[in-house]
Amino acid sequence: MARTLDLNCDMGESFGAWVMGDDAAMLDLVSSANIACGFHAGDPSVMRRTIRMARDKGVSVGAHPSFADLYGFGRRRISGENPDDLEAQLIYQIVAMRGMCAVEGHAMTHVKTHGALGNMAAVDPDLAALCVGAVKAVDPGLIYVSLPYSETMLAAERIGLRTACEIYADRSYTDGGELTPRSQPGAVIHDPNQSLDQVLEMVVNGHIPTTGGKRLPVDPATLCVHGDTPGAVEILRKLRQSLIENGVEIAPFAKP
Amino acid sequence: MARTLDLNCDMGESFGAWVMGDDAAMLDLVSSANIACGFHAGDPSVMRRTIRMARDKGVSVGAHPSFADLYGFGRRRISGENPDDLEAQLIYQIVAMRGMCAVEGHAMTHVKTHGALGNMAAVDPDLAALCVGAVKAVDPGLIYVSLPYSETMLAAERIGLRTACEIYADRSYTDGGELTPRSQPGAVIHDPNQSLDQVLEMVVNGHIPTTGGKRLPVDPATLCVHGDTPGAVEILRKLRQSLIENGVEIAPFAKP
Amino acid sequence: MARTLDLNCDMGESFGAWVMGDDAAMLDLVSSANIACGFHAGDPSVMRRTIRMARDKGVSVGAHPSFADLYGFGRRRISGENPDDLEAQLIYQIVAMRGMCAVEGHAMTHVKTHGALGNMAAVDPDLAALCVGAVKAVDPGLIYVSLPYSETMLAAERIGLRTACEIYADRSYTDGGELTPRSQPGAVIHDPNQSLDQVLEMVVNGHIPTTGGKRLPVDPATLCVHGDTPGAVEILRKLRQSLIENGVEIAPFAKP
Amino acid sequence: MARTLDLNCDMGESFGAWVMGDDAAMLDLVSSANIACGFHAGDPSVMRRTIRMARDKGVSVGAHPSFADLYGFGRRRISGENPDDLEAQLIYQIVAMRGMCAVEGHAMTHVKTHGALGNMAAVDPDLAALCVGAVKAVDPGLIYVSLPYSETMLAAERIGLRTACEIYADRSYTDGGELTPRSQPGAVIHDPNQSLDQVLEMVVNGHIPTTGGKRLPVDPATLCVHGDTPGAVEILRKLRQSLIENGVEIAPFAKP
Repeated sequence: MARTLDLNCDMGESFGAWVMGDDAAMLDLVSSANIACGFHAGDPSVMRRTIRMARDKGVSVGAHPSFADLYGFGRRRISGENPDDLEAQLIYQIVAMRGMCAVEGHAMTHVKTHGALGNMAAVDPDLAALCVGAVKAVDPGLIYVSLPYSETMLAAERIGLRTACEIYADRSYTDGGELTPRSQPGAVIHDPNQSLDQVLEMVVNGHIPTTGGKRLPVDPATLCVHGDTPGAVEILRKLRQSLIENGVEIAPFAKP
Repeated sequence: MARTLDLNCDMGESFGAWVMGDDAAMLDLVSSANIACGFHAGDPSVMRRTIRMARDKGVSVGAHPSFADLYGFGRRRISGENPDDLEAQLIYQIVAMRGMCAVEGHAMTHVKTHGALGNMAAVDPDLAALCVGAVKAVDPGLIYVSLPYSETMLAAERIGLRTACEIYADRSYTDGGELTPRSQPGAVIHDPNQSLDQVLEMVVNGHIPTTGGKRLPVDPATLCVHGDTPGAVEILRKLRQSLIENGVEIAPFAKP
Repeated sequence: MARTLDLNCDMGESFGAWVMGDDAAMLDLVSSANIACGFHAGDPSVMRRTIRMARDKGVSVGAHPSFADLYGFGRRRISGENPDDLEAQLIYQIVAMRGMCAVEGHAMTHVKTHGALGNMAAVDPDLAALCVGAVKAVDPGLIYVSLPYSETMLAAERIGLRTACEIYADRSYTDGGELTPRSQPGAVIHDPNQSLDQVLEMVVNGHIPTTGGKRLPVDPATLCVHGDTPGAVEILRKLRQSLIENGVEIAPFAKP
Repeated sequence: MARTLDLNCDMGESFGAWVMGDDAAMLDLVSSANIACGFHAGDPSVMRRTIRMARDKGVSVGAHPSFADLYGFGRRRISGENPDDLEAQLIYQIVAMRGMCAVEGHAMTHVKTHGALGNMAAVDPDLAALCVGAVKAVDPGLIYVSLPYSETMLAAERIGLRTACEIYADRSYTDGGELTPRSQPGAVIHDPNQSLDQVLEMVVNGHIPTTGGKRLPVDPATLCVHGDTPGAVEILRKLRQSLIENGVEIAPFAKP
């Protein structure tokens, strides 16, 4: 009994003269790429090159919008901004990426918010509604990538936007179904076998194992992997192979 | 015998906390708006507000892309850049504006390059080819606004892109059909009557009167007006009225 | 019995092609100018011109550092940033302004934090310590402009930095001595006579009148005035004249 | 007979989340560091860390100002800018670096212009005069690092600014004493032995060997080395060792 799982990775995070990550290598392993739109990373040339590589390797592309914060790489938590301004920023980033994909002949399939914006929206109903509304305003057919048990998931479902439930291999979950905050012990899973077991439990059995010993129902569509840590490519290659050996088929959650 | 003329104006040049120009007043007088895309001026919120105002007043909207140069307002001459990078920047700006127009239900009709980029492309065949190619890559149905007797006009015609020939009321022309450089005496026409006569000569009779006394054939589609100088709105109001009284119909060169 | 009061105003907030405020007019009325350092507003050319005008009119100059947030004009609340990074940003801005003052032959006297940074530091002991520490690291002789009854005032006193206590004419105060949040009714004082009375009560009698009817001791050094609202220059001119007529001498809290 | 030579390298070119070069390794080998000031690369935190490392390793620090062009890494050629604006930008960068050095207890010794600004100033008398004038305005005791046979060298000497004549190991020279443009064959010297010979000829014998077979007099103070190419550290280590074995002492041209 094969289950299908998408592997998604943030990409296109180089900027001008600065290079970040090995996108070409990661694109051989993942099935979806979330590409920076120029607000926290990326520039038009980086976006185009990344889109072209993804297209040529059959990898789905999504927009990866952020707060307007190049210096802080979108990791600074920004508040007190006019919601209309933030909504316009999101729309701008999404249509820019979608338009560049169209020029390159590769239909954009999804949106995933970046960094501090994503973290804040996951627990803030107003911000969650703003994010999913911006996506729907651009194209109601876009898929919203979201953590389960989050305000963004609820908000997307509320307005009828399709979602792709995102899981992590290297992060533990609280009894509420949220990622354990990095500030707490046990937040990060370092053992590859434990990571594999957690993913299989979620994908094959449809349960999130929590730190409190609960098992929460989940219907995962995509696994978030990272390309910017040392050994990232090798770690992913092994996890990917193990998943396949355990009967999981790796494929995009959406066909471009 | 009525001739039709479009009036176009650069707009949406506010940025963040900074306001520039009185776009609302100008939108009551012009028929086309070239809106900054965020690279030399404008931001997503300014873009959206300007698009909405233009839509509600029946004014056509075009993208007004520039070199990536917010500090210099796109007026600094930039060279030595990789042509692929510049092309990607132009595509990014055009698709961003086009996408935001689509979200607001107002189809984008044209593209006009801004400032130093426009000035340099008008006399540089390679840069001209790059600019018109970026427009065509996004949408072959877009109209390219260009000076007559320029490399951009030639380049647009060469690739089959529709053009809108742009004229000036307050600038004199050389015998080559180019705008007299501002550094030369007589470059700027200050007398409103002389401005009106020049426009009528171009629109009604189809001739550019040059500083050397020649009359060059021209088929003007749009008149460039400015919104960022003192008294701009009043000057335009009078010129517009005079044109109408002389049988010129003011209307967009393209219906959105 | 004359009491001395400084009038300080935020200035140098133009950027590139964008103009904000009428600094020349305000410099005729104030005794201290807090000049933007390029992180939320201002650019090197604007800084230099503003310093020169202040010098020529005998107005003291201080640095007005901010979060790195040009788009948001320093008004967005930013958190989650590495404290070392923020400290370096503050030091950079302060030494840049101080160095440019030195080049223009006008010694910089003080520092006042801008916008969201100032608001957040006033109630956050860690952020307050960071801000005053950055000032002291540059020059222990600099004066820190701070609200009374704030964490910044406490932090500055704790490390032995000289302070200038700043008051407002157009804002009411809570029983805790803080500015009433703008979200609450009665936060802003619109009546010029009431504003004048409040300032005189603070300056002449040394008491802050609070919304709860208390009178808190205060030793004000400088009154914050605004240059970016309609009629700002005229409002200030009248308030200034009234203060003088009531025996208050207008002079910088520090001689450059 | 020992001759002294400084080795200088551009550093501090990381920005925000992006890392460039291995400054720590290079600082073990060079005697002077030209640190980016935040306009083409670098940020306040990067500047401070780099200054501290240089100080702790006894390496002299200079400012490395650029056109305001973060996206283009200061490599885009920018013209048509108001000279007053550019001068203010240079002063800002130089005082910012000088001030941060002072805060860290490490006196800044020199200035070297970056990228396109440096290349353009070397052959443009007006731009050269602007650059050296900005340095002198900040501190007449600063040393200007300049190519020989350049407009910047002439301009610095004209206003009495001390200079450090900079040579290259891996670039050939024209009969005019300028670097052979990279577009021409033979511009870059790839053979380490040939590089060493050229440096020794310049340092020990005081002659620039030119591509036309001439020998131009030169009094070199510093050799420009690069840290951002593959194998840079190892190449420099070998060249440095060979220079020492040939009786050249490596030391800063100025003691901080």
